[in-house]
Amino acid sequence: MVQNRALVFSAVPDGLPVAGKHMQVQATEFDDAAQPPAGGFTAKTIYASLDPYLRLRLVAPDKPRPGFEPLPAGSIIPNTVIARIIKSDNAALPPNTVVIGMAPIQEYISVTGEQAFQFSPLQNPANVDLKLFLGPLGMPGLAAYAGLYEVAKPRTGETIFVSGASGAVGQLVGQIAKQAGLRVIGAAGSDEKVRLLTDVFKFDGAFNHRDGDARAHLERLAPGGIDIYYDNVGGELLDVAIDAMKPLGRIVACGQSSQYNALPSQQYGIRNTWQMPGKRITWRGMNIFDDGLGDKYRAVHQEKVGQWISDGTMQAVFSETKSIEEAPAGLADLFAGKNVGKAVIHFGEQ
Amino acid sequence: MVQNRALVFSAVPDGLPVAGKHMQVQATEFDDAAQPPAGGFTAKTIYASLDPYLRLRLVAPDKPRPGFEPLPAGSIIPNTVIARIIKSDNAALPPNTVVIGMAPIQEYISVTGEQAFQFSPLQNPANVDLKLFLGPLGMPGLAAYAGLYEVAKPRTGETIFVSGASGAVGQLVGQIAKQAGLRVIGAAGSDEKVRLLTDVFKFDGAFNHRDGDARAHLERLAPGGIDIYYDNVGGELLDVAIDAMKPLGRIVACGQSSQYNALPSQQYGIRNTWQMPGKRITWRGMNIFDDGLGDKYRAVHQEKVGQWISDGTMQAVFSETKSIEEAPAGLADLFAGKNVGKAVIHFGEQ
Repeated sequence: MVQNRALVFSAVPDGLPVAGKHMQVQATEFDDAAQPPAGGFTAKTIYASLDPYLRLRLVAPDKPRPGFEPLPAGSIIPNTVIARIIKSDNAALPPNTVVIGMAPIQEYISVTGEQAFQFSPLQNPANVDLKLFLGPLGMPGLAAYAGLYEVAKPRTGETIFVSGASGAVGQLVGQIAKQAGLRVIGAAGSDEKVRLLTDVFKFDGAFNHRDGDARAHLERLAPGGIDIYYDNVGGELLDVAIDAMKPLGRIVACGQSSQYNALPSQQYGIRNTWQMPGKRITWRGMNIFDDGLGDKYRAVHQEKVGQWISDGTMQAVFSETKSIEEAPAGLADLFAGKNVGKAVIHFGEQ
Repeated sequence: MVQNRALVFSAVPDGLPVAGKHMQVQATEFDDAAQPPAGGFTAKTIYASLDPYLRLRLVAPDKPRPGFEPLPAGSIIPNTVIARIIKSDNAALPPNTVVIGMAPIQEYISVTGEQAFQFSPLQNPANVDLKLFLGPLGMPGLAAYAGLYEVAKPRTGETIFVSGASGAVGQLVGQIAKQAGLRVIGAAGSDEKVRLLTDVFKFDGAFNHRDGDARAHLERLAPGGIDIYYDNVGGELLDVAIDAMKPLGRIVACGQSSQYNALPSQQYGIRNTWQMPGKRITWRGMNIFDDGLGDKYRAVHQEKVGQWISDGTMQAVFSETKSIEEAPAGLADLFAGKNVGKAVIHFGEQ
């Protein structure tokens, strides 16, 4: 028997979740000598992803957020994990295979035959760090690629504005947009993040949205207006972006992290939607699992981003929580915007 | 010489424009014995359209609304007119031809050779009342048809919610949607208009948005939610519609008449845009002159709507201002939502 420590949703938060109060580490016993479930496998977790949207599941059961199933308090928080199979009763997933899929965030996972289809063996021919498959080579990368090409339909020479721009998706959107010949402006929530945008990701301009008037920052950096807004945060920056948008502009609604900690009645009121008809803006909410998004771009995303990562054209910056013990704090920091880069938990060796 | 009375934008309003103060009738002399302009024509106006969007042009020159050119105070208000040619120096547009085009709203118009291309001879084989070409057979009808089919992409059995539903575009959207096999719910601003929606236009449900809680009305009439929102008014109904929207819903941003009289800083704050990603909503601002909208649907619109009008399947209700003297009041009533049906000025015989 070993300890199996897990990241548990322990109490429904009102606003910003607090580590140790709303998210806790709880341990159960795990029998590492037992046989795996019939047709399934047991595995040891290597990495788990921490994503802003998780906040939308940490709500009271009678107050669901549209598109997200409330997680019962007391549950282990599920998300994408990368794990190495220890024991298997599934010929397609033999021991030692590294798999990726949705699972409760804990040190050991036990997957039944019915659940096994949710996991894929991870193809890693270039032998890169596995966490890249939770970032540029995973869902965030695919969301960035498909959201940009399918929803925003970029044209060379256009200007794109990206919010949450140092985050999991934002940092990739900006770099993919540079490759597409766009002028890229980013907003992030600290001076450190802004330096990352310009110095590491090579954005054309960036500003700290907590530092002064966001409208003035955007007017300074994109005086002619913007063609595309890739929205990861919502709130005031969304209002400012609509105001700065050129005719026939496009808004990719990927997330609204600034609004996830507020009750629906406390959301920021967007005053500029009256400009939608006059500017003929197209604004589309995306989910990478929808038909015509992830499926359509999976192959080209893997090819292009894999190449850019391997030849150093694209950079990926992570915010790594180094153990499951620190996971509640890591998640709280993510919700508060205190982390820098794509957030993951590293459980140990690859 | 005759008097040529015109509808003049006389002063910039702060909020709701007042007849006699911000819009006035002013007369000039018109020489009906003179030769027409070289290559052009003179004509006598029969109908002029009054449209909510005109409010977006009646603003201070330094406070333009995106997508709309401010009209200099003192100018004659321009809009679509139907007129009969009196004298012509253009072989393609001989005297007695009825034309439709953009012109200053006044009793007599004088069109130069350079401007003549903006006018089309009106094809009226069924000899219907000419005002129908400012409603179902004109721009409002085309906007309704193209907005519904190109932007909303309706599927049989879906539910559509239409605001400003007794207005120029709304009444047609609802009736076209019924023909497409949709369940149609409408909102309008008076009990009289609501009766029109259910009794004349045969909507499946309708409510007065000034009467009680709009959210409760919509939940009662569309308990399963809505697939499409055709937005003519913006404001609170937009917020309510986003909240009622099903996953993968579509919003057609045709107009926001409830917001046209407020300064940008006073616009209603929409709190529900945070639902865009979770519900994967597509929201698109439309202008009938954009590529792929009016041009794409012009032929099918004329054929279908022409047939529905002539066989009595489609009804068209107008709010007719009976003379140019009453035009300032007619326009003020339109901006205040006091008129019923598509607003036009009737100058006299057909």
